Amino acid sequence: MLRTVVVHDEKLLCSALVQLLRSDDTLDVTSLSPDADGPDREAAPANVCVVDGECLTGPDKGCGERLRTRYGGRLVVLTTAKRPGVLRRAFDAGALGLVDKNAPVQRLITAVHTVARGERFLDESLTVALLKGSEMPLTTRELGVLALASQGAPIAEIAAGLHLSRGTVRNYMATAIRKVGARNRVDAIRIVQSAGWT
Amino acid sequence: MLRTVVVHDEKLLCSALVQLLRSDDTLDVTSLSPDADGPDREAAPANVCVVDGECLTGPDKGCGERLRTRYGGRLVVLTTAKRPGVLRRAFDAGALGLVDKNAPVQRLITAVHTVARGERFLDESLTVALLKGSEMPLTTRELGVLALASQGAPIAEIAAGLHLSRGTVRNYMATAIRKVGARNRVDAIRIVQSAGWT
Repeated sequence: MLRTVVVHDEKLLCSALVQLLRSDDTLDVTSLSPDADGPDREAAPANVCVVDGECLTGPDKGCGERLRTRYGGRLVVLTTAKRPGVLRRAFDAGALGLVDKNAPVQRLITAVHTVARGERFLDESLTVALLKGSEMPLTTRELGVLALASQGAPIAEIAAGLHLSRGTVRNYMATAIRKVGARNRVDAIRIVQSAGWT
Repeated sequence: MLRTVVVHDEKLLCSALVQLLRSDDTLDVTSLSPDADGPDREAAPANVCVVDGECLTGPDKGCGERLRTRYGGRLVVLTTAKRPGVLRRAFDAGALGLVDKNAPVQRLITAVHTVARGERFLDESLTVALLKGSEMPLTTRELGVLALASQGAPIAEIAAGLHLSRGTVRNYMATAIRKVGARNRVDAIRIVQSAGWT
């Protein structure tokens, strides 16, 4: 039996994925809460971890680091071509499996078996998006400024938070807006968020 | 047999929900694409439609109107307490079922049977969020201005789009920022989007 854990922050969808994977009776499937302090933290070790890509993003950087520590590269990340930033982050973290949320069910099951053998599984529909994600044009600083701005922080607060002058923050912001081809600050935040870069 | 259709814009998750509902062998479950022009548009009539709440939102207002026309109130909407705007919209549209995405699987199955009988099903965890959603403080105009701004439109374009003067747009914006307790325009957009009001 191949031990598989599923991580999704919506319990109903998590149960649905568990049940779906159980249709393959060579898989022994359980769920795990993305919350570190949840009751599932002492979950049994598994051969493969299937995780919703959205659990790897967000202001707190998600649970990616923890899953990586626990499962190494034996991660199958579910995402879509619309989220090149999520894809890129998963790829850079060494996740062996990247499955399109619009793929047929059998693709996910194949991905689990492939990753369990230590081989890479990458949905073709995600390849182009992954390459685009690698073109993320912003520096860490520029992205950091936009990330704080997206939380509603004014320039002065961003400057204080990053130990920069207000003028420097304005410069980073202007460069970031230009680089992503945005029309203004709100547009830049929209572009960066919808790509999953923050 | 109770005919049930599932609408979710991620096909893999849609299949997972279909499979989950099929664990109740009194349900005859199929899936339906949220896309109006999809191949599933001529789907057979059903007693109940289970729909991901996110399909009811977005700049194009989602597929809510079409589902309402087709299934009346026999909708079971999946959402979370974090999305009072989605909840409110589903409730106002007459959806009989509102199920928390964090509920146990059995709740969803119970909801389908309850709604099929023409009765209301509302997860307790969503009730408070629903009441909060009813306190949405913005007028349609203010929300419209914020929605356009969130797409990256500058003031002049919002004014042209809504046939208003720039000064009026600035006034609506200022009122909206104050009403939602935001610190600035970006913060107001963040608050309104994360609540699911746009």
